[in-house]
Amino acid sequence: MGIEIERKFLVDPTKLPELDPGAHILQVYLSEKPQVRIRLYSRVRHYALSREAVMTIKGEGLLTRAEFEWPIPVDDAVKIIEEELWLYYIVKTRYNIGRFELDRFEETHKGLWMAEIELEHEDESFDSPVWLTEEVTNDARYTNVTLARDGLPSGG
Amino acid sequence: MGIEIERKFLVDPTKLPELDPGAHILQVYLSEKPQVRIRLYSRVRHYALSREAVMTIKGEGLLTRAEFEWPIPVDDAVKIIEEELWLYYIVKTRYNIGRFELDRFEETHKGLWMAEIELEHEDESFDSPVWLTEEVTNDARYTNVTLARDGLPSGG
Repeated sequence: MGIEIERKFLVDPTKLPELDPGAHILQVYLSEKPQVRIRLYSRVRHYALSREAVMTIKGEGLLTRAEFEWPIPVDDAVKIIEEELWLYYIVKTRYNIGRFELDRFEETHKGLWMAEIELEHEDESFDSPVWLTEEVTNDARYTNVTLARDGLPSGG
Repeated sequence: MGIEIERKFLVDPTKLPELDPGAHILQVYLSEKPQVRIRLYSRVRHYALSREAVMTIKGEGLLTRAEFEWPIPVDDAVKIIEEELWLYYIVKTRYNIGRFELDRFEETHKGLWMAEIELEHEDESFDSPVWLTEEVTNDARYTNVTLARDGLPSGG
């Protein structure tokens, strides 16, 4: 288990550098409080598809929260997804740019890009790339689980 | 993953044979629908304490239901329990008698004993020991998650 400290930003995709292929992520939420999430990663590298499944349990909090994470069998994750043993889902592609994880959301969240940086301390400073726009760390509408449940913030 | 077929019975503890020490089980429910459960087993054998933690995800159904199960790190399970990232809990001691799993419930469920037998098919026959009493397979009040949430059935 760890304590996760993350800051989160909206992104101007027109200012991004060229991106690697990224990892396709399908994540489902089995519970919201506590948060129970299964994430299925699919990556194509050198013409081979690799898949990986991870279960995550998170406590409450926006900037800082307890997090527990374990790998689980991919076949089980696929069956849990297929049998719809979950409440909400999100589909996105994840890219790594330096210390940032950049997510391009898909399907009903198409058009949304967000970047996260994990910090050691809440007041740690970091270089802010030109493609970062508004910080949304403390805006609960932009947590993935709320996006999955409620869709894109309107008017935001 | 598997499909779990189980029949469940109340028990007359005065008719039980002598029992082995059993395994102490603390189980917490992180979610009810789908059911997300973490079970922490503690066993004392030959003066050594061994612990084991298992996460289980179950679909709906009483006699037959989909079930997914994986071991998880004991330290994580203990922290999730301590940080109260769950909704309800149950404490019981589990004994194995032949093909039956026998549970003696503790704390607020003290006095309740139940036995379960796992079957290959819904219509499979089995030897019924003298200490089995009423079958409660299809009585939702006797699922562990309902007992954890609502306590002992009243007037039963």
